[in-house]
This record gives sequence, C-alpha cells and structure tokens, in this order.
Amino acid sequence: MKNTFGNALCVTIFGESHGPAIGAVLDGLAPGLAVDEEFIRHQLALRRPSGRISTARCEADEFRIVSGVHEGRTTGSPLCILIPNADTKSGDYSTSIARPGHADYTAECKYHGYQDARGGGHFSGRITAALVAAGALVLPALGKKGIVIGTHISRCAGVKDAALSSDEATLIHQLSALNDIPFAVLDESAGERMRAAIEAARAEGDSVGGVLETAIVGLPAGLGEPWFDSVESLLSHALFSIPAVKGVEFGDGFALADQLGSVANDTLWMQEGRVVTKTNHNGGIAGGITGGMPVVFRCAIKPTPTIAKTQKTIDMKTNTQVEYGGRGRHDPCIVHRARVVVDSVAALVVADLLTQRYGVEGWQ
Amino acid sequence: MKNTFGNALCVTIFGESHGPAIGAVLDGLAPGLAVDEEFIRHQLALRRPSGRISTARCEADEFRIVSGVHEGRTTGSPLCILIPNADTKSGDYSTSIARPGHADYTAECKYHGYQDARGGGHFSGRITAALVAAGALVLPALGKKGIVIGTHISRCAGVKDAALSSDEATLIHQLSALNDIPFAVLDESAGERMRAAIEAARAEGDSVGGVLETAIVGLPAGLGEPWFDSVESLLSHALFSIPAVKGVEFGDGFALADQLGSVANDTLWMQEGRVVTKTNHNGGIAGGITGGMPVVFRCAIKPTPTIAKTQKTIDMKTNTQVEYGGRGRHDPCIVHRARVVVDSVAALVVADLLTQRYGVEGWQ
Amino acid sequence: MKNTFGNALCVTIFGESHGPAIGAVLDGLAPGLAVDEEFIRHQLALRRPSGRISTARCEADEFRIVSGVHEGRTTGSPLCILIPNADTKSGDYSTSIARPGHADYTAECKYHGYQDARGGGHFSGRITAALVAAGALVLPALGKKGIVIGTHISRCAGVKDAALSSDEATLIHQLSALNDIPFAVLDESAGERMRAAIEAARAEGDSVGGVLETAIVGLPAGLGEPWFDSVESLLSHALFSIPAVKGVEFGDGFALADQLGSVANDTLWMQEGRVVTKTNHNGGIAGGITGGMPVVFRCAIKPTPTIAKTQKTIDMKTNTQVEYGGRGRHDPCIVHRARVVVDSVAALVVADLLTQRYGVEGWQ
Amino acid sequence: MKNTFGNALCVTIFGESHGPAIGAVLDGLAPGLAVDEEFIRHQLALRRPSGRISTARCEADEFRIVSGVHEGRTTGSPLCILIPNADTKSGDYSTSIARPGHADYTAECKYHGYQDARGGGHFSGRITAALVAAGALVLPALGKKGIVIGTHISRCAGVKDAALSSDEATLIHQLSALNDIPFAVLDESAGERMRAAIEAARAEGDSVGGVLETAIVGLPAGLGEPWFDSVESLLSHALFSIPAVKGVEFGDGFALADQLGSVANDTLWMQEGRVVTKTNHNGGIAGGITGGMPVVFRCAIKPTPTIAKTQKTIDMKTNTQVEYGGRGRHDPCIVHRARVVVDSVAALVVADLLTQRYGVEGWQ
Repeated sequence: MKNTFGNALCVTIFGESHGPAIGAVLDGLAPGLAVDEEFIRHQLALRRPSGRISTARCEADEFRIVSGVHEGRTTGSPLCILIPNADTKSGDYSTSIARPGHADYTAECKYHGYQDARGGGHFSGRITAALVAAGALVLPALGKKGIVIGTHISRCAGVKDAALSSDEATLIHQLSALNDIPFAVLDESAGERMRAAIEAARAEGDSVGGVLETAIVGLPAGLGEPWFDSVESLLSHALFSIPAVKGVEFGDGFALADQLGSVANDTLWMQEGRVVTKTNHNGGIAGGITGGMPVVFRCAIKPTPTIAKTQKTIDMKTNTQVEYGGRGRHDPCIVHRARVVVDSVAALVVADLLTQRYGVEGWQ
Repeated sequence: MKNTFGNALCVTIFGESHGPAIGAVLDGLAPGLAVDEEFIRHQLALRRPSGRISTARCEADEFRIVSGVHEGRTTGSPLCILIPNADTKSGDYSTSIARPGHADYTAECKYHGYQDARGGGHFSGRITAALVAAGALVLPALGKKGIVIGTHISRCAGVKDAALSSDEATLIHQLSALNDIPFAVLDESAGERMRAAIEAARAEGDSVGGVLETAIVGLPAGLGEPWFDSVESLLSHALFSIPAVKGVEFGDGFALADQLGSVANDTLWMQEGRVVTKTNHNGGIAGGITGGMPVVFRCAIKPTPTIAKTQKTIDMKTNTQVEYGGRGRHDPCIVHRARVVVDSVAALVVADLLTQRYGVEGWQ
Repeated sequence: MKNTFGNALCVTIFGESHGPAIGAVLDGLAPGLAVDEEFIRHQLALRRPSGRISTARCEADEFRIVSGVHEGRTTGSPLCILIPNADTKSGDYSTSIARPGHADYTAECKYHGYQDARGGGHFSGRITAALVAAGALVLPALGKKGIVIGTHISRCAGVKDAALSSDEATLIHQLSALNDIPFAVLDESAGERMRAAIEAARAEGDSVGGVLETAIVGLPAGLGEPWFDSVESLLSHALFSIPAVKGVEFGDGFALADQLGSVANDTLWMQEGRVVTKTNHNGGIAGGITGGMPVVFRCAIKPTPTIAKTQKTIDMKTNTQVEYGGRGRHDPCIVHRARVVVDSVAALVVADLLTQRYGVEGWQ
Repeated sequence: MKNTFGNALCVTIFGESHGPAIGAVLDGLAPGLAVDEEFIRHQLALRRPSGRISTARCEADEFRIVSGVHEGRTTGSPLCILIPNADTKSGDYSTSIARPGHADYTAECKYHGYQDARGGGHFSGRITAALVAAGALVLPALGKKGIVIGTHISRCAGVKDAALSSDEATLIHQLSALNDIPFAVLDESAGERMRAAIEAARAEGDSVGGVLETAIVGLPAGLGEPWFDSVESLLSHALFSIPAVKGVEFGDGFALADQLGSVANDTLWMQEGRVVTKTNHNGGIAGGITGGMPVVFRCAIKPTPTIAKTQKTIDMKTNTQVEYGGRGRHDPCIVHRARVVVDSVAALVVADLLTQRYGVEGWQ
C-alpha cells in the first residue's frame, strides 16, 4: 500500500526532503500508552548527522504531535507527528542530471517529471526521520512487555565489529548499551577504524557501506504466520523500504546455504522449564513463526550514492551523456545513521504482530 | 494478510499436506487471458520430486480449475485452482516430538495443539504447488508483454554454477533454456557435481542447501513505490513466504556493503535511444523502482530440516528431552525444486505491479 | 478487495453459477473452534429454494471442507469450503440478450465478453451459498460468546410482519425461533399473506421484493471505529455485496431524518448496574461503535429481475432493440431466501470486529 | 482499516476537535494533477457553519499542504493537508456526563477513558473538514474526465425539495448550480421553509435531520465489482463513516421493496448509439457495476444530537442518573453542511474506482 504499512497497527508516512514538513500517521495504537517526547528526541538524535562522517545538513528535528495524544498518553485515535524541514538548500539540486545510484531516473519514469526532485524529494533518506519518530512511539510500550530491540554495525568499510552474544542476558545488556551510543559498535576500537575508513573515503570523494545486525529479545513464541505474513516476510518488507538496504538475511542467512542440515537444525532443549534452542542458526524463527529465541537479522547497506567524484551519467532533458560531480550536502556513509531506522521499523512490525495476535485490548 | 498476498492482483492459498486438497484463489486477473493447462502441468512437474535427490512422495498434481475460466480464458472473476493430495502416508508423522529445524514447536505455540501436524500440515512445502499453479496462470501473459523470468541454482552443496550473462539477449536465452530443464544450472558439469554432493549428503542421512539466482528481463521502468511497496519490499515479502528461504538480496546485495560508492553506482548510459546502465550492481532497482534493466536477486535456501540422522529434541507432550531419527519421506535437498516456486512468486509480484500501474484494463 | 472481505478475519469467495463449484476461503479463524457440519447443512437449507415461491433449480448443496479443519475443529489455517454445482441447465442462458435488471450489460462492459454468462456466472445469487457456509462456520463460536443474530421478513410484497420486541429477553427468543423456520416471520398469518402475494406475482409472470430486519444481541460495547470502520460502514459494505440489496438503514434509519433530536437521542440509563438506553432509535451504535444494546438494521431487497413477462431490451451483439421473455428457472421472490445470507454476512463482520479488538487469542 | 479508506487511492484522516490540527493524507494520486487551492477553500466554505442555523464555532479552515504538491501539481507522492484548529473552547466540554445521542459512552467503552473528549475529540464532525479537503483535491480531476457530482437537500425538517431531473443534460446543470450555493436546494422556496423549520427547532432547544440526495453523472460503464467491492458497498462504506448518516439507499432504494419486478427493471435502450436505460430505478448500478447512467443515492441524516433541551443521562464516573442541558456550541441542523462531505467522499470513491480500473497511468 505505497506509503502505509501494517495490518492491525498501520503507519503512513509522507513528505519530501525540501517540502514544508515530513511526518507519519500511526493508526491502531492502543489507548493509554505513555508518550515519551524525550525518548523521541533521543531516537531522532541517533539518526541525525554528526561530525565529519556525515552530511553538513543538520535538522533540529523539532517534531509536533498534532493528534492522537491527550495528557501525555495515546488516545487510541490516529496519531500524526510532524517534523518540519528547516535546513534546506534547494539551489543545490535544481538540475535535470540523473545522479548515478540515485532514484532520479526511475522517479522520472514513474512520475513523468512531476516529482519534487529537490534533495531527492520523497525518496530522500530524510523521510526516515518519520519512521524513527513512529518507532519511538511504540518502543517504550514494547519495553514494558520485556521486548528489547538493538542493532550494531556488524561491518562497515570492510571493518568488522565484535559479535553479539549468544547468551540472552548478555545480549540484552549489549543491546541496551548500543541504544545509548551514536556509533553503534560493540568494540569501540573497531568503531574507530570504521570512522577512519569513512573519513578516508570522504577524502577521496567517495562513500562506503556496511552491514547492520539486529536482535529482538523477549518476543513471545507464536507470532507470525506460515506464509505471506511470516515474520521474515513482514520484517523484510519493512526493512527493504529503507533506502540503501539491498539485502536482508535471518539467523545465519546466506551462510545457511552452505551448511548441512544436521548443523543448521537448532536443537530444542528444556531449560529451567522453558523451551530453548541450543543454537540460533535460524534467527529465532521457524516456519515463519517466532519460537521465543532472539530474532536476529542483518541488513546490507549499500554505499551512499551521492559522492564528490566525477561520474558519467545522462541529462534527462536532452538525453545526452554528461559528466556529473556531486553537489549538495551528503554523507560518505549512512550505516551508523541507518541503525536507528532499522530498530524503528522492527519495532513497528513487532507491535503490529502483537496487536494482530492479542488485539488492541491486549495492550491494556 | 496471512494467506493472501497482493494489492491489485491477489493470491490466496490454502491447504495442508495430508488434507483432501491444496489450492489457490487468484483475484484481480484481467478477463480474456489465455489459460494454458499444459504449461501449468509443465511448471508443476518442475517442482515435483525426481529420483534419488528427492523425497519418495510423488504427487501427480492433477489440478482442477473450479472457477474463473470459461472457454480457455480468464473471465475476470476469481480463479480457484485445486490440487488434490493423493499420495499421503499420515502414519509417518503422528507424534508429539518436535522435529528440529521444523515448525512443529512454533506451530504448537501458535495453534495450541489444534494444527493438523500430519506431514507438516499447512507449513508443508507441498503448499508451494499452489503457488506454482498460480504463477503458471500469469506467466504466459507476462511473456506476451516481453517479460521473461528465470532462475538458476547459483550454488548448491558448496558447488557453484556459471554466472548469468550481463548481455540482455544472452540472458534471455539462458533464462528460457533454464525454464525447460528440471535441474536449473547453466553449467551442466556443475550440476552433476551438485547432484553428487546431494546424494552424498543423503547417504550420510543429512541434507544440503544452496542459493537461487533469479533474473526478470523486460520490465518497464517506473514500477514500484519509493517506500513500503518498493519492488524489493514486495518481492522479498513474497520470497520469504517460501519455506527454507532465509536470505534475499538484490543486485550485488551483501557484497555492496563492501563496495565504494564510485563502484556501486551504476552509470547511466544512452544506448540506441534507450537509457541503460553500464553495470547492474543495484539489480535493476533504484529508489525501490524499476529502471528498465534486468531485476536480479538471490535467495538463500537452508538445508532441508528433515534428515535421517539422529538428533536431540523435545517431546511437546511430556516436555522431556528425547532423541529423534527422521521418519517420513523427505528431500536431501530442495534447492532445485524451489526454483520454480521462486519464479512463480516473482511472476505474481510482477503481475500485481503491472496491474497497479496500468490497471486491469492495461492487460487488454 | 474484490472478492475478499474483512480485516483480521477474511473471507474470499469464488465460483460461477454453472461452473464446477463455488466456495469460500476463511482466513484468520482462531484454532480450536468446533465445526458443526450439521449446522452448516441447516443454514444452507434455509437458503435453498422451496416450493412454488422459488426457482425450480434445486441444489443439494453437498459441501466439502478441503482445508483448515482437523478432527472436527478449526486448525487456524485457512479453511476452504467447496460446494459443487450439480443442477445446471446452461442451455437456458446462451444468449447475447441483456436481461433487464440483471448485470448482463454491466458485466459485458467490465469483462469485454469474457465473462461466464451462463446462469448469471459470478453474479449469480448462487454464490451466496458460499457466504452462508462461511457464516455457518463462525455463528456457533459467536453463540458461545452469547451473541445471537436473527432476521425476519419485515415487509414483503406490501405485507408487513409484526415488530421485533424491544425487550431483550423476548427479542433473543424471537430471533432463535426465526432461525429455525424457513419463512422467517414473527406473525405466521402475515407470512401466509406474503406467500399468497408472491404466488400471485408469479402467476402474473412478475416478481416482488421486501425488507429484511436484523438484530444482533449480545455484542460487547466498544466494537468498531469512529470513521471508516464504523460498525455501520463494515456491515453496509458486506450487506450491499448481497445481490438485490439496494438500501441499508440502522435503527430508525430514514425515519430518523424526520425526528427531532430530543426524540432521536437514546436516553442512557443505569439498569441493574449495566448501562442501557431507554429507546434504540440509533440501532445500538453511536459514533460508529457498539454500546451494548441490540444492533438493528434493515435491508431493502429489490424484486427479482428475472420475470416471465415480456420486456424490451437490447441484443449486445447486434446493438439492436429486442423483446425478451424470461427463460431459465428463477424466483418470483428471494426475500425469504436472502434472510440467511444477511445473517451470515453479519456474523462474518461481527467475528472480524471481535478478532480486531481481542485478537486471535481472544477466542481461546 | 480504521482511519484509512481506499484500495488504489487511499485517504487517511486524523485529528481531534480541540487538538492542534486535523488533516488527511492522500496516497495513490497520479502525478501532475492540478491543485486548485481556491477550489479547496470554496469547498471548505460550503461546510462551514453559517448564521443562525449553525453552531457559533467558526473556523477559518486555513489549510496547509505539507507534502505531495510541487509547483501547483501533485507529485504522485502522498499528499498531506493540515487544517489547524483555532476557535476551540474546551472549557465547554470538560465533563464525565455522557451526552445522549453522542459517542461519549461508546468512546469510553472503547478507549477506557484515554480518549480526548473535548468537543467530541476524534468523533467530532470537525474531522469532516479533512474529508472535504481530500475530496476537493480529486474533484477537479474528475471534472476533467466529464464526471459531475452534486447533492441536494431532498428533505429537511419535514420539508421536501423539488426532484432531480431525469434528463442528463438538465441534471448536470442542476448539480453544477447546487455546487455553488451554500444551502443546496433546487427549489429556493422549499429552502426558505427548511431554514424556518430549523430556526424553529433551535428556538425550542431542539434539532432536526433530513435526507441528502446525490447524483454522479459521467461515470464510465464497468466500474466496481460483483461482490465485496460493489459500487454500492464502497460508497456506503464511505458514506456511513460520516457522522449522523444512518441510512443509505441507491436508486429507488427502500421503495424498490414494494415495486414489482416488471417496474423495477430498467429497460435497456439504444439512444444515439449509446446504451441507456429508460428509467433509473436501480441508481445506475447493476450487479454492483456502473452501467453509464447517473449513479443516484440518498443518505438519511439524523438530527444533531447536541440540543439545549434538558435530557436524562448518566454520569460515567459515578454511574448515576443525571440531567443534562446541552452546553457548548452546536448546530440545530447539519444536513446542509453535510452535503459537501457526501460529495467529497463520493469523489474519493470514484477516483479510487477509476484508479483500480485504469491504473495510475490512466490519469495521464
């Protein structure tokens, strides 16, 4: 449904990079959920560019909730949150040149020239701020249910981070720590090397990508559906909405393709009266349905398309070959900024799955 | 929506492994599309087990279209196709033991013991026959529009196939050839080694997985949406519905994470009056929207969970630890059988995208 | 969504009048609901033509559940129920004449001649048997929750039935009685006059219509939504799907247009610790949401379009004016047969509303 | 879907009566449609209260389009329009008394006290301004396709207006004239008597209702679906979302229940090479599908629930019986104001139907 996602809990997003505002409508929220504006600010800050490894455009992300909240709690009516655009420099973008790696050409094919091309328009990563705000509205309620979501930069510019723990208590500790730091790595020395590599790419007028790894702990067993609404289907649908995500894998993912069945099968085990698996090769999901183990997935983030280096491309007005050197403000890497977007859409999917299973009344 | 998928063209699937029949309802088909029963049979045959590298269960897959077709053409009303189950041996499965790697335990959590567990019930790969039949109903109409879909076993049991061609004419030739052979490899010597490896795993009471690579050629530019209905989102949603798929990537996918932006950006080029890209690192999709180049993606298929080797697991009735040696009939590998399922769901997604953009009348 | 209806509990219908079978898929049913095949037969019998006031076509309505039920209970997987067509005489219908009052001409415009026109095809009232079967699958579960649904022929061929009681206990008694008789009137003498009027119309080669009045007792307060999913919106959406329904009103409906606010407002009252209204002008719904009083609505059923009298119309092949005298078998009145269809779609809407509010787990 | 409606063209509404703003998101609009802000203002003005027959609350309805429009045309991205609330007096409403005829009690049951009750909150007729704005965004594009929508007050406070013409050219003329006047009657002398009756009711501290009759001219034949997406189903779904609508009928509606089939059947006729019907008892729809004749329907509008007269009701905090005399500002009649809301939702349904049939590209 284009710009709406979700079955029982739906999020609708809107906005363009250089328009008056971007925003989201959340519909299907249970009434009475506490709205933590400070937390929304915290999450938006995690997405904001920072220092030399990001774009120079910096939005304050002052948001405004215009409906669905009364006296600090959700009313149960649709919640609309607006984030005005303030720091826009449209002069940078007025051109008919199709930037390589961007959606300029595909947008032209789809919208026949009527798209608002300034700053990437509706395709801009800027719109992910609306997703982050929406996610921040449901994350506290998930936390109250004992569900913890967190993401680390598993790989960036060729540098690897340490691994998430397979021990659940340690994992929760790791995820909580990640949620408080702007550059989400478990091993800060790896983080330093990543940032150095990003700066090096920037100095070359180039950009880098990476892999984000996410864990969701505390999900009840039995969420999801065998077929089209498998947990993998719903999460991947939402994750591939995030610009730059080009791959999604669950558990061992592509590595499972080379394993033997006797290895890939996660042995079921009784542990203090609870059913667990010894390993988690399948990322906490079997037959599309959660089994109570951490749900683990990874997203491949491609390098930012806007670069300073001169590239060949076409002018869409004249249909001629031209050279293009990146103008406008941009990021040599968005992996660290995309992390909170991944957490946010994961939170929205989880909240939807819970609402489908337990109803709107299930949140009381 | 659980067992329904699609926006303008919707498929609903139903059935259990050992129930009377499985089937699908296709709704939103344009009227007047030719229905090629021979082709449906051909596609179902590609999914059927074959020889020693597959399960001994063999269904004739005699299907019956009970609505939506009149005098060999679609009427525009919902088309229901039924495939009766014939070769069922339910005695093999009556047990409260949760088979490792299967959905037995998660199904128990979700359905509280009311699920039809025989042969995997609604979780069985058997239900993919309904998807294949549904796909076979739209593929000829796509072919008439010049759209060709094909998949090869890019990797299986550690053995690699040759690569798909980057030349469009050659690629179309390759895809057409793949669609006619039961074990879909470009390099038949690689295929022989794959089958040998599958048989070796089977001899060990074990199973193997692999990677399927798919190309869709001939799509018009401008299909898909920037956010939740990106082509990646819709395809991955459908692909992750297929049992055993644990990863999906587009273009260079996870490899993009390690590329520089100057490499990953596909240079736009004018070629005989048509806009093309020199490379196709992004798999024919930018900003979620097709650009006219081949859409290329890969699915990671995990090794079949049912194996003969003895494994540890739990008995769900007694909540005790038990040992389990695989009973029932099963496949040491399903990669080669999954290929046509991937093609089929891809066809359904493409037909839906076309209907959304050009309407039901766009097929006349 | 064309042939699918519902949010959390979805029904998909398919079939043509003279095709092999009609049927329905119910998806989103909670697992463990008892399936009462005897009751399904009872409901289908209420829809079947009877005697001289109905068509001569009589289907045995032998149904077959092909998925979603195991050992007499729902599994939670999609339930497909098939009803084969047996008593078809297609010779009666092969013509390019657009029968007045029928969908022949509009179907031609929509399907460009590819529709299966025999017996009305997908437009046939025959397909309502699938709705009745679907409704019969959820009605027992509603009954267990204390929800009673019933309909009487409030008016037919100009003859009025007695009124439903405003006393809830009496009303439940009335509804239960109605559900057991084939011609649903409270006042059997009125019923006799109605049947006489129907036979008189038939003798004239003509047909008659009427009004069905339905009450749903026992709904919890708080179901429905303020706007697009108001209880009125959802019920009317489903009710207007039934062929021949041309008007739907809730509570006093159109009569409210002439009342004063001081009359139309239902006074709230405390009665034995429960909030009730003294009157029920608004049919148990305020702001789109149930208040705990009986939900009451009426459907206008137009006279059956197929009549024996000669009428003027067009031949769609030659685009010329012709005369047409009704051929085929048909009903001089369908009001009494439509009653159980109304109950069935009402049951489906109610089950969906409950699932949305309390979740799938809410049925355990 | 709660606050979202539509298949291919979706509208999402949000807002509360006394919150910062109300608004709508329109998604699925074709790119390049001209946005006429003056026309939006005109439509909002038709909904605004006027003089002694309306509430004293008067909003300027200054709207702001925050996305989806660039250089005066739709971009094809979601269009969000905001209408701030300015003239709010919340002191008037702070009470736990359930106003009779209002949703106060049902809202309490649904939202457990978390609803924003001020001014009716999300239930307020105020939110219809968002629907009017949304409708005003698609009406010009429909006009360009030759589709004209208009509504008159067919009956109000017991006074009848003249009838819409059965001649299409005259009808178009009538509808266009109605769209320019604030109190939509064909016979101005009837209008005077209506307004006098409204004022008389107001003087008594009471309120009145009425019936709105709408015609849609110029629809192509072939829109809609045989079953759940019949034109009647979709229109009634949207119409019953409008507060105070308690009945919807198409063509002769409830009067059809008393007609004979030989009368109710609209005779098909060739007229200057075009297929028409001599009469339009079925309101331009057969089998759920348009036939090219004007689509005609009527909505019953109940009298405004807020009245000055003292009524008995309950206090929801103390669960005791109390007396309540209407406070706050309100309308003795909303029939004349509801007219443009009806036109607007009809326009949204029609635009959705066209998009489903002809695609987004069908608007180019």
